[in-house]
Amino acid sequence: MAGNTFGEIFRLTTFGESHGSAMGGVVDGMPAGIWVDTARVQEALDRRKPGQGALTTARKESDTVEFLSGFHPQADAQGRRQTLGTPIGFVIRNTDAHSKDYDALANTYRPSHADYTYEAKYGLRDHRGGGRSSARETVCRVVGGALAQALLPADLHIHAFVQRMAGVGIPEAAQFDVAKAFLHPTGCPHPETAEKMEAALLALKDAGDTAGGVIRCHVAGVPAGWGEPVFDKLHARLGYALLGINAAKGVEFGSGFAGSDSTGSQQNDAFTGVGQTATNHSGGIQGGISNGMPLEFSVAFKPIASIRQAQQTVTREGDSTTLEITGRHDPAVLPRALPIVEAMTALVLADFYLAQRHQLNA
Amino acid sequence: MAGNTFGEIFRLTTFGESHGSAMGGVVDGMPAGIWVDTARVQEALDRRKPGQGALTTARKESDTVEFLSGFHPQADAQGRRQTLGTPIGFVIRNTDAHSKDYDALANTYRPSHADYTYEAKYGLRDHRGGGRSSARETVCRVVGGALAQALLPADLHIHAFVQRMAGVGIPEAAQFDVAKAFLHPTGCPHPETAEKMEAALLALKDAGDTAGGVIRCHVAGVPAGWGEPVFDKLHARLGYALLGINAAKGVEFGSGFAGSDSTGSQQNDAFTGVGQTATNHSGGIQGGISNGMPLEFSVAFKPIASIRQAQQTVTREGDSTTLEITGRHDPAVLPRALPIVEAMTALVLADFYLAQRHQLNA
Amino acid sequence: MAGNTFGEIFRLTTFGESHGSAMGGVVDGMPAGIWVDTARVQEALDRRKPGQGALTTARKESDTVEFLSGFHPQADAQGRRQTLGTPIGFVIRNTDAHSKDYDALANTYRPSHADYTYEAKYGLRDHRGGGRSSARETVCRVVGGALAQALLPADLHIHAFVQRMAGVGIPEAAQFDVAKAFLHPTGCPHPETAEKMEAALLALKDAGDTAGGVIRCHVAGVPAGWGEPVFDKLHARLGYALLGINAAKGVEFGSGFAGSDSTGSQQNDAFTGVGQTATNHSGGIQGGISNGMPLEFSVAFKPIASIRQAQQTVTREGDSTTLEITGRHDPAVLPRALPIVEAMTALVLADFYLAQRHQLNA
Amino acid sequence: MAGNTFGEIFRLTTFGESHGSAMGGVVDGMPAGIWVDTARVQEALDRRKPGQGALTTARKESDTVEFLSGFHPQADAQGRRQTLGTPIGFVIRNTDAHSKDYDALANTYRPSHADYTYEAKYGLRDHRGGGRSSARETVCRVVGGALAQALLPADLHIHAFVQRMAGVGIPEAAQFDVAKAFLHPTGCPHPETAEKMEAALLALKDAGDTAGGVIRCHVAGVPAGWGEPVFDKLHARLGYALLGINAAKGVEFGSGFAGSDSTGSQQNDAFTGVGQTATNHSGGIQGGISNGMPLEFSVAFKPIASIRQAQQTVTREGDSTTLEITGRHDPAVLPRALPIVEAMTALVLADFYLAQRHQLNA
Repeated sequence: MAGNTFGEIFRLTTFGESHGSAMGGVVDGMPAGIWVDTARVQEALDRRKPGQGALTTARKESDTVEFLSGFHPQADAQGRRQTLGTPIGFVIRNTDAHSKDYDALANTYRPSHADYTYEAKYGLRDHRGGGRSSARETVCRVVGGALAQALLPADLHIHAFVQRMAGVGIPEAAQFDVAKAFLHPTGCPHPETAEKMEAALLALKDAGDTAGGVIRCHVAGVPAGWGEPVFDKLHARLGYALLGINAAKGVEFGSGFAGSDSTGSQQNDAFTGVGQTATNHSGGIQGGISNGMPLEFSVAFKPIASIRQAQQTVTREGDSTTLEITGRHDPAVLPRALPIVEAMTALVLADFYLAQRHQLNA
Repeated sequence: MAGNTFGEIFRLTTFGESHGSAMGGVVDGMPAGIWVDTARVQEALDRRKPGQGALTTARKESDTVEFLSGFHPQADAQGRRQTLGTPIGFVIRNTDAHSKDYDALANTYRPSHADYTYEAKYGLRDHRGGGRSSARETVCRVVGGALAQALLPADLHIHAFVQRMAGVGIPEAAQFDVAKAFLHPTGCPHPETAEKMEAALLALKDAGDTAGGVIRCHVAGVPAGWGEPVFDKLHARLGYALLGINAAKGVEFGSGFAGSDSTGSQQNDAFTGVGQTATNHSGGIQGGISNGMPLEFSVAFKPIASIRQAQQTVTREGDSTTLEITGRHDPAVLPRALPIVEAMTALVLADFYLAQRHQLNA
Repeated sequence: MAGNTFGEIFRLTTFGESHGSAMGGVVDGMPAGIWVDTARVQEALDRRKPGQGALTTARKESDTVEFLSGFHPQADAQGRRQTLGTPIGFVIRNTDAHSKDYDALANTYRPSHADYTYEAKYGLRDHRGGGRSSARETVCRVVGGALAQALLPADLHIHAFVQRMAGVGIPEAAQFDVAKAFLHPTGCPHPETAEKMEAALLALKDAGDTAGGVIRCHVAGVPAGWGEPVFDKLHARLGYALLGINAAKGVEFGSGFAGSDSTGSQQNDAFTGVGQTATNHSGGIQGGISNGMPLEFSVAFKPIASIRQAQQTVTREGDSTTLEITGRHDPAVLPRALPIVEAMTALVLADFYLAQRHQLNA
Repeated sequence: MAGNTFGEIFRLTTFGESHGSAMGGVVDGMPAGIWVDTARVQEALDRRKPGQGALTTARKESDTVEFLSGFHPQADAQGRRQTLGTPIGFVIRNTDAHSKDYDALANTYRPSHADYTYEAKYGLRDHRGGGRSSARETVCRVVGGALAQALLPADLHIHAFVQRMAGVGIPEAAQFDVAKAFLHPTGCPHPETAEKMEAALLALKDAGDTAGGVIRCHVAGVPAGWGEPVFDKLHARLGYALLGINAAKGVEFGSGFAGSDSTGSQQNDAFTGVGQTATNHSGGIQGGISNGMPLEFSVAFKPIASIRQAQQTVTREGDSTTLEITGRHDPAVLPRALPIVEAMTALVLADFYLAQRHQLNA
């Protein structure tokens, strides 16, 4: 219940505060004999890394993952190593934490941050950085997600992309390749929209303001039958995973909120074959169980709370004060959140993939 | 992982198929010495009961809950009984299941139902009713939720209401009392909107069609400090709980999807006191932890899939066929889903209420 | 943590107090498509049933289990029904509870019973019967265990027998058939010893006293590879399961306590083939994982605390008093505990059987 | 179920193979604001450390624990730091692993080791050292246990000692101080017995043989009310914890196996006051719940399987062969197992200590 472990069978436990010495975690439940290319784990981390352009924080972290256990010592010709079935421990050192930046915050609550709620919960708080509520914690999720991907079937592909940011969205009729989100710093795979987004985001940044937006995720290759019919519906577990990402404030599956304004005759997905439907308003899930069509879902992210404008707030004693946040912050969380959305999706799917083996009674 | 238990400390396990002999469950983790008025549990069930008007299915169930354990035999003057700290077992008999209505469906997959996904998952299926994917299962959640409410602080109030249905929504500026949702069969507490909704819904019903909509929920009295900062964020657990309700396709907190189009300077909730903010765009949650302001969130429900119109589908052998669903079905799930939204919310909050006791290190 | 659920993948949740209206439970995680002969579940219950002779309590319960969910309605020619993959709910009504017998106990703590510890834990207590600490609760475990047995491989055989009771034990060199425990009311499969045991037990009963003893369990047909190497060692999970049985005070595997006085050269089990050893001092488990040899373990049961002799005790106010327990009680728990030992063993094995499917990476 | 996490509320997750680069773990569920003296954690590790005399393996590890998260940066005058309520990650580097010693074992199964069962389970194995089945893993349990001790009430004292080893046991009537186990390399607090044990152990060592024995544990200061009445009985959880220690083959509580030969009139613990009994045959637990008397229990350890004598075994291909184990090994596991018994006990008690807070309904 302390909530630092995710998953039931394939389990990721994470630790580490933003301004402590290291982040790290343990993946438990990885079966033995899975070939893992650790270079690909590092690639996933690199896509999340800060300090890569005007759209992200200037904090520089090498974000190099060190694996401490779980792999057979012998690598194959491609440098891949086999899992031993034992827990995979890993550590990522924090190297560029500017704790001094936070000294002014020791006695003041930043609006829409977790400063106050942390103190209300724990009675004390390390005011340097956001502790566990910092997005820095997600570096461990990316490692866990990359390991989950290594377990999942090779033809299962997870692609998240920025659909909407700073008020600019991909037009509904637009054609684009979901796999190309990482080619543009915005994370938007539709080049024309990406440029408008970037301009809008930089304008906000210049004004000391920040943006929110929507990430859409598309998963191909999930076979029919994953998920459970009651509390552990596939989309309920995905929603749980995605709402656990920093700044996420909403999630929807298939037609989602828009579909709730429609009618049954418009929304129903007519079968054209066993496991094939003419439309995919259901987003690949019916009754909480995958139906063989691609999974489709969106995550809404609020604008980052660390703005470079004067804000009204109170001190711990309740006195009114004005706060100006300095430090290094992203103007929007979305581009760097893409690998995190993919990671959390992979973690959920790995769990259901293994759970479905319980049903093999041939 | 089989997913029929909800919660970590305060746990509800449910069983029962729509057309079997009974529904039932077990609540484990209820502390000893809590006074429970079982008449109020029955009231909650009655609000969810079918057969109460033109807007709900004609299936008639008395939905009388029988408690089998967990209470001290002696009642007080108000008829309340004390919990023993032992698991509370309960049963609700199924009495009006029309299994014959489903005979035509044995070999055909209903569009946007769980028929196909069930078979893909389990390899076999009882075609009478929806089994565990039927909304009938939620009767047990209402019992569990009512017990959770008995545990929660007396000044914590959960109010769900229909905000939007059949394309008709409460205007943004409208004033209304969230506690009055149950006065109208639509579940909408704004009388003018409720009448328009009802008309729109009956028109769809006449056309053999069905509606979706959005339920909003408002929770007053949650103290600051509930929830966990990483995977078990308060809204992540709520999202998990709410997306596990039948036909739910989306969930959002505070400003949600709309807020993602806004900016940080507009969205941030300025502090006006310790635990008080000028606005509540955060929906009462910051960094996954309650901040003392009311919780605010919405759930999107898709239109019910059982329409009384001819639909294209396939048989288990993959042959194209046309399906006409008879049987008794609601034109919209929302009015009867209100007590379920409240129940799932109560279950999540009971868990965090007890979890927060771990932090009492005075 | 409230501790009324056993198992991780194959899970049994139980409810019911000794003198309430019913006992019952839910089995979750049973895969779909398993053929279950419910008559065999009832057989297992009948072997545990009280009122069957001079060696057991006179309380008479029909102990008829009613299954409420989880099975396909159609039975095959042998009367077997297939599981649906949904939770199996069941109820067993209490019919012969003599609550009046307990009135004298409302204000007094019975020595070596759970009366005092219950009050210390919960702050209140239903003094009629032992509540959840009564052996009556185990009726639900027998149902769960019988369902687990239906899932386990057909050639996996679990046989518990009374090895020692009332100070009388089977001689070390004796030959006997472990499958014949149920032919004698003592539960001892060695006829000569069984008669001595019975005589010793009846002598104690006549003196108003009670006996303890040791149950040995032998499991054939467990393949190599079940269990986990660290916390969830096969014998650690078995020990947990067995020590949860009423009156159990110890458990040992293979040579157990006697083996701890031996040396490595004497205790090591030399391999005679892959998965075959010359001796079985390890009791079929090495490093927490089954090795393909039969599992062998013992459970020590203390003498029943309800003796028909005057005992010194105190009231709730701390005043000294003398207590004479009336009511109906067994002179020894062991004969009726045999099916419970077998049930708990089956529950543990079902869990590891399903868990091992996670490793199938062919 | 992969079994590398222990506990429900206070949870320890461990990772690391005997011959990998590091051992480590995460403690989750530690409340905020607990003052921890990390020097005392290191002391506990030092008591378990190898290379401290003729009675333990010559493997030399500094066993220095590095804490990576979970503590407030500011220490008090005594060097203690406060927990943040966040997970505590830690790492202990492996520095003296002689992997070469194991090359001869790549293709051969050591008798009564986990070599064969590992392969049967996982399909592959890192033959260097025992992987996760090595006692090296327990270094992480000692860290977790020391943190649990910091949480537990200050007047709760856990003392394990070697009661019997190499066939030599403390006489029943002997008087000794349980707190003095660590003054002698055998771990036996009765000086006269300790010397006989040491002599017997060294004689076995000279003969290339190994010893087993029994550790007794005494816990003072557990208040009445900890534990759960059904599956999670206090002794069932303790048994689970203790049987998860390497080489443990049995566990008993209070009078244990000996008590099972006794009668109810002899075994019952007469009350002399509320929460006080004349005897303690129950070992401080009745009905699975602590009764306020000291906890008393024993753990049986088999002799270490790594003997320096020729042994019969088979290769992976099933061919008979003779094996001579070299490498560095303890002649008995017991002296170094004392801090592990204490650690596992502390982990179980920390869990129940926090769980009991759920019952505070004042």
